[in-house]
Amino acid sequence: MAQRATAQVGVTGLAVMGRNLARNLARNGFTVAVHNRSPERTRRLIAEHGGEGTFVPSESLGDFVDSLERPRAIIVMVKAGAPTDAVVNELVPLLEPGDIVVDCGNAHFAATRRREETLRGHGLHFVGTGVSGGEEGALHGPSIMPGGSAESYARLGPMFEKIAAQVDGTPCCRHIGPDGAGHFVKMVHNGIEYADMQLIAEAYDLLRAGMSASPAEIAEIFREWNSGELESFLIEITADVLAHTDAATGRPFVDVVLDQAEQKGTGRWTVQNALDLGIPITGIAEATFARSLSGHADQRAAARRAFAAASEKWQVEERGTFVEDVRRALLASKIVAYAQGFDHIRAGSREYDWNIDLGGTATIWRGGCIIRARFLDRIREAYDAEPELPTLLVAPWFAETVNAGVPGWRKVVAYAARAGVPTPAFSSSLAYFDALRAERLPAALIQALRDDFGAHTYRRVDRAGSFHTLWAGDRSEVEA
Amino acid sequence: MAQRATAQVGVTGLAVMGRNLARNLARNGFTVAVHNRSPERTRRLIAEHGGEGTFVPSESLGDFVDSLERPRAIIVMVKAGAPTDAVVNELVPLLEPGDIVVDCGNAHFAATRRREETLRGHGLHFVGTGVSGGEEGALHGPSIMPGGSAESYARLGPMFEKIAAQVDGTPCCRHIGPDGAGHFVKMVHNGIEYADMQLIAEAYDLLRAGMSASPAEIAEIFREWNSGELESFLIEITADVLAHTDAATGRPFVDVVLDQAEQKGTGRWTVQNALDLGIPITGIAEATFARSLSGHADQRAAARRAFAAASEKWQVEERGTFVEDVRRALLASKIVAYAQGFDHIRAGSREYDWNIDLGGTATIWRGGCIIRARFLDRIREAYDAEPELPTLLVAPWFAETVNAGVPGWRKVVAYAARAGVPTPAFSSSLAYFDALRAERLPAALIQALRDDFGAHTYRRVDRAGSFHTLWAGDRSEVEA
Repeated sequence: MAQRATAQVGVTGLAVMGRNLARNLARNGFTVAVHNRSPERTRRLIAEHGGEGTFVPSESLGDFVDSLERPRAIIVMVKAGAPTDAVVNELVPLLEPGDIVVDCGNAHFAATRRREETLRGHGLHFVGTGVSGGEEGALHGPSIMPGGSAESYARLGPMFEKIAAQVDGTPCCRHIGPDGAGHFVKMVHNGIEYADMQLIAEAYDLLRAGMSASPAEIAEIFREWNSGELESFLIEITADVLAHTDAATGRPFVDVVLDQAEQKGTGRWTVQNALDLGIPITGIAEATFARSLSGHADQRAAARRAFAAASEKWQVEERGTFVEDVRRALLASKIVAYAQGFDHIRAGSREYDWNIDLGGTATIWRGGCIIRARFLDRIREAYDAEPELPTLLVAPWFAETVNAGVPGWRKVVAYAARAGVPTPAFSSSLAYFDALRAERLPAALIQALRDDFGAHTYRRVDRAGSFHTLWAGDRSEVEA
Repeated sequence: MAQRATAQVGVTGLAVMGRNLARNLARNGFTVAVHNRSPERTRRLIAEHGGEGTFVPSESLGDFVDSLERPRAIIVMVKAGAPTDAVVNELVPLLEPGDIVVDCGNAHFAATRRREETLRGHGLHFVGTGVSGGEEGALHGPSIMPGGSAESYARLGPMFEKIAAQVDGTPCCRHIGPDGAGHFVKMVHNGIEYADMQLIAEAYDLLRAGMSASPAEIAEIFREWNSGELESFLIEITADVLAHTDAATGRPFVDVVLDQAEQKGTGRWTVQNALDLGIPITGIAEATFARSLSGHADQRAAARRAFAAASEKWQVEERGTFVEDVRRALLASKIVAYAQGFDHIRAGSREYDWNIDLGGTATIWRGGCIIRARFLDRIREAYDAEPELPTLLVAPWFAETVNAGVPGWRKVVAYAARAGVPTPAFSSSLAYFDALRAERLPAALIQALRDDFGAHTYRRVDRAGSFHTLWAGDRSEVEA
């Protein structure tokens, strides 16, 4: 049954994320049209939360569309992939030029670019929007990363900025850039999250192995770290998790959890795309692979048997120094992961012509999302001061922090190698740092080998041009 | 003008790779139809090399097709991508059921799968074939990796096995498996090649930094290594390249080459696909990223300025021990890279139902290709002895070699971290090894964090099922 068009925004797809976004909008005073393929969910939302604000429920998609003020703003919150296409395809014929379809699911940015182009052909706006913060964030204030046209942001921005997390009076939402920019930035956010978590896990593992410390003792160390430069949501919940005791066994909770980490694909997407763009995001790659490795139980069992004696138990001599070294190694490696992630965003922005504001991106990650951290203010400052910064590493605060951390970082990575504690992300970040600052890289030898076996040519340090050495001949050099 | 169908095989696309393959076939007694879009190349081949065997030149594609015995076997040797599609599309209407189109270009295996399916619909065979060995290999004996149907291999095998490199009387060619299997295996081959070269480059860099050795001295070390377990084409040419002096400056050649390594994409493809399959090929990933990093000249310049003092020059104490430690680290890291690469092939084989023989694959890489090495016999032995080997690392010879190398490997990686020599592939391989053999991984903490912020659930070490802790509530555990 048609209704008066009174709703300011609509949400279709009322599983937990969609429902919480709708409630968040309603609680903030917006009139929210709600719809779900099976109407049971819509009815339950109204029954359980109808009093939180003004909802306009519809049982058919047509009524839902009719209940919205024009230009319509419709949030689609369904599974990424085919379900998103199905809903969008059903919506399109019901809409009118100027209407806006917002995809808040976890779409790959390339799919978002495709959909945006298709809808643009119908005179519609398609706004791929990254939403971070999980269920709780969706309800109480997520970090919101909308792509799409500037015109659509003029309509959506006021709503999204109101329901987003707020930090120092600034909303954790801003227009990222055209078409797939929002989902792209959300993807890199998740990649950084992978690296951040892997680094935390390695720090924990090092403290435990090096000092035979208990999870509860390590929880205390993380709690302390959370009052300094490392202050962040992930460090905070790490302390919580490590302090937790399993009720069933009385053992530290972390010890009863199976040591196989799962993933849902965004780390993988991030690395795959960085490979296309030629951006070395080694920390994210190692973190992604570390999760895969953990799941190969059969290989792990075989390797444990074959290599049980391949390291000795090493105890560190001075606990206080070691803890501080690990902290500095964690901070420096984390800076590398963020430097790589922001390089990736800049490269994507250039490749797809998005004109993304790097400092602005850091700003909207300060609240709502999983990687929220004090640290992000420093990133904003760095890019605000120098938008063309070649790498975050060399911005004053970061360079200073890394330089101060280098001796500890080196000690910790060397310790891990000797003691047989796997630290793929710590080691890889240090190697990245040392490669980036190297006077000369052995890449020269690689290029020379490529010229030898494949005539791929090389450039010289002392003059322009491309050259080839006649390796199979008299080894003279020719211009290529 | 139509000709009598006398040619046993045809080659279209006569740039250097196609020309050399055609000459190789002719020199081995096969009658070879040759064709090129611009006939000038065809004429030049006949003028310059017509006496090497029996060529049947054609200037039109129709005449070329007509000059071939049925079922026709046509090698397409053009640029991967659109040019391949263009030639294939032009060929299809000229062919008859049972004819075979062989793509010897560097296609992505997914494109090969697509083309194979299309041609199968026309009753034709499409055989994506990896060819390794560069121009010289194509002429004198490459390593050949054909995919496609068993039926097409019955026709092609005798020719390909004859023109391939031969090692101990065994040709470096065998049927890899259906559709894209050949191009897939060639892709992983190239990925392993990236890792192999990066490891060699790191070994060189370590020897140079640690002992202030000259390239000529290091060339001698590599020459010696080439008489032992490391014996391989790449070690051999590394010695050659390092011993070479630049005529223009009198300096070591490697020092006048710009230290930016280029790439053509197969390393990238390998890592992207391994991410999809969940196989941690960290050595190949680090090698691929190391090349990208080397090309970011602006970032490197900025980092050099900011972090000049971030390490001290360390000289090793005992040169002989250090050289042997580096050798063992190189060998152990190389074993990791191959273990990862063969895991990747096995995963691809399972994913796409190819039934690839891992030992057989090692066999055909022993000659002709860039990664040819003595070592590959050990891989064949390992998989022949135990086809379901969980990882190459635990096969007796490899486990023994790695165990013997571990102390040196640990020392070298620790040294690199302390001295500031970037060894992303050495470090990453050691971290992989230590992770695989770890009793417990901190992946447990990662999974616990995922349960905390995203309700992603976890499994327990002590009983089956999936669980969730009510982190925001009373922290009791519920079955998920």
